Amino acid sequence: MRKFFDPRQLLHAPARELHNGGFTDYAEKPSRAETILAAIGGAEAPEDRGEAPILAVHDPDYIAFLKTAAARWADAGRSGDAMGYVWPVVGRRPLRLDRIDALLGQYSFDGGTPLTARTWESAYWSAQSALAATQAVLDGERAAFALCRPPGHHAGADYYGGYCHLNVAAIAAQAARDAGRPRVAILDIDYHHGNGTQDIFWTRGDVFYASLHADPATDYPFYWGHADEVGEGEGRGATLNLPLPQGTMIDAFRAAQAQALRAIADFGAELLVVSFGADTYIGDPISAFRIETPDYALLAADIAAAGLPTVIVMEGGYAVEALGENVASLLSGF
Amino acid sequence: MRKFFDPRQLLHAPARELHNGGFTDYAEKPSRAETILAAIGGAEAPEDRGEAPILAVHDPDYIAFLKTAAARWADAGRSGDAMGYVWPVVGRRPLRLDRIDALLGQYSFDGGTPLTARTWESAYWSAQSALAATQAVLDGERAAFALCRPPGHHAGADYYGGYCHLNVAAIAAQAARDAGRPRVAILDIDYHHGNGTQDIFWTRGDVFYASLHADPATDYPFYWGHADEVGEGEGRGATLNLPLPQGTMIDAFRAAQAQALRAIADFGAELLVVSFGADTYIGDPISAFRIETPDYALLAADIAAAGLPTVIVMEGGYAVEALGENVASLLSGF
Repeated sequence: MRKFFDPRQLLHAPARELHNGGFTDYAEKPSRAETILAAIGGAEAPEDRGEAPILAVHDPDYIAFLKTAAARWADAGRSGDAMGYVWPVVGRRPLRLDRIDALLGQYSFDGGTPLTARTWESAYWSAQSALAATQAVLDGERAAFALCRPPGHHAGADYYGGYCHLNVAAIAAQAARDAGRPRVAILDIDYHHGNGTQDIFWTRGDVFYASLHADPATDYPFYWGHADEVGEGEGRGATLNLPLPQGTMIDAFRAAQAQALRAIADFGAELLVVSFGADTYIGDPISAFRIETPDYALLAADIAAAGLPTVIVMEGGYAVEALGENVASLLSGF
Repeated sequence: MRKFFDPRQLLHAPARELHNGGFTDYAEKPSRAETILAAIGGAEAPEDRGEAPILAVHDPDYIAFLKTAAARWADAGRSGDAMGYVWPVVGRRPLRLDRIDALLGQYSFDGGTPLTARTWESAYWSAQSALAATQAVLDGERAAFALCRPPGHHAGADYYGGYCHLNVAAIAAQAARDAGRPRVAILDIDYHHGNGTQDIFWTRGDVFYASLHADPATDYPFYWGHADEVGEGEGRGATLNLPLPQGTMIDAFRAAQAQALRAIADFGAELLVVSFGADTYIGDPISAFRIETPDYALLAADIAAAGLPTVIVMEGGYAVEALGENVASLLSGF
């Protein structure tokens, strides 16, 4: 299987995140990617396909903000990484805001995703890796893997959060649409709901979004991913949320994945994007499912049996010591 | 002038707040109230009018949350004060969320307002002080002062933030409505926009809300208080926002207040609630207007000249060393 990664994806390295009421070490560390790279035997560098496929998903003002946020933060006399402290919970509307704190809140939804001077560059190349894997599949590969880091599924068209800035799965799916595949599906098997992906395709009938994740009543991102969220307008029925309880093990997870794959088949997808998070692993420090390393090969085999050309993009997974093996297990199943 | 305050309002004392990307000392300190109390020669304790007048403004689920948040935080094994780290920026809807972090985000909009085990008690008595001052005015006093602390104008019907939990100005205005005054106005002259008050009365035509404040393009709360926000439905035209630039001095401030008072007169208000913040003071550590101590008496005299029965509730003001004098100056103008 072809695999893609650019070393510039390592540049984003915030010092800390706000979590459960205080600052902790930033869990989405660059070493995650290094571990995976070692376990899967390296990866090709992606070509640079430019910003157009990113702007096909993301708002241009948001992209301009991501590029300049760290400089604006420094201009305001602040040290450290840029993060918001107030959020527009009662309504987001276009506003001409001048202060960096206002913009940080306007374009994010948590305090867990600080921006650094290298964030844009890392996120850009993470998206390029996703685009390279997509192109490989469009060119005839049965499956390809993008070692995306930073991950993407919590990022919306105009917001970041949950360690995510550019929605790599959405960018891949949109690239497939723009290459002429009329119906594309995204299967999200990260521990957390992919709220950004859901929001991006919420009103669209051409991209199906199915997610297995920890019940948002108890797990981040809390406000999205409940079972009654099914899309709106032309997108009604093209979103499928399958929340699962903490403690879920492979059998229940596999059964839920089978349900998602049936829905994707019924939808008539011609290409599949898998948002893969290894934070479903039993040893993950911030999650509570009980999937074990060999289980990932089983999940992959079930996905492969669906017979769709498949782009796999990396999302979460924070048990760094086991992360490489978990990803290698998944890829072995294809 | 009658003045009201209950010592239990001092019990809320968080250790720190999230501000401009890091933790700082909590600016809304109990010593604020003590300084004011000394400068104004003490205050009467309010009667306990119960929860009904609070529930006339606030959502019952939100009130239940405020009462139990600190205990739920402790039950989750957390130390320190309770604060959120993720917020529902894309939409707030009724959700049955189990985790305290989810609830903290659901019911707040910033990281600057931690909850403690005594927050509810302090906020409750702050509201009782506002109700006592309102009753004094309804009973015939020309004006009365409630030393509200914690303050209120950033709190919405179902959210807290900006050091505010219960919207004391809204509770006072609603109490006047419920006592049979058909048209009530709120004049908000705190440095910051009173987003909570605005939201509470946004669609109502019986309570006029006029606010002078620092332009939200540059100042907290950023996402509310822009000049084009005028209310909706029956409330259309009953919200007046007058954003002012940083550096504003007394002449410009007084002119804007005159404009607000004319609008209130045109509205036909029969009772006035003043949300008074002394954070417009030139020496305020977190604000940027240039009002001086004797200026507050001028502002008060202009308000008094409007000839309306007036309830004054205390909002912000963080230059503790000058706060007592600033409040005394204001009250001297009535």
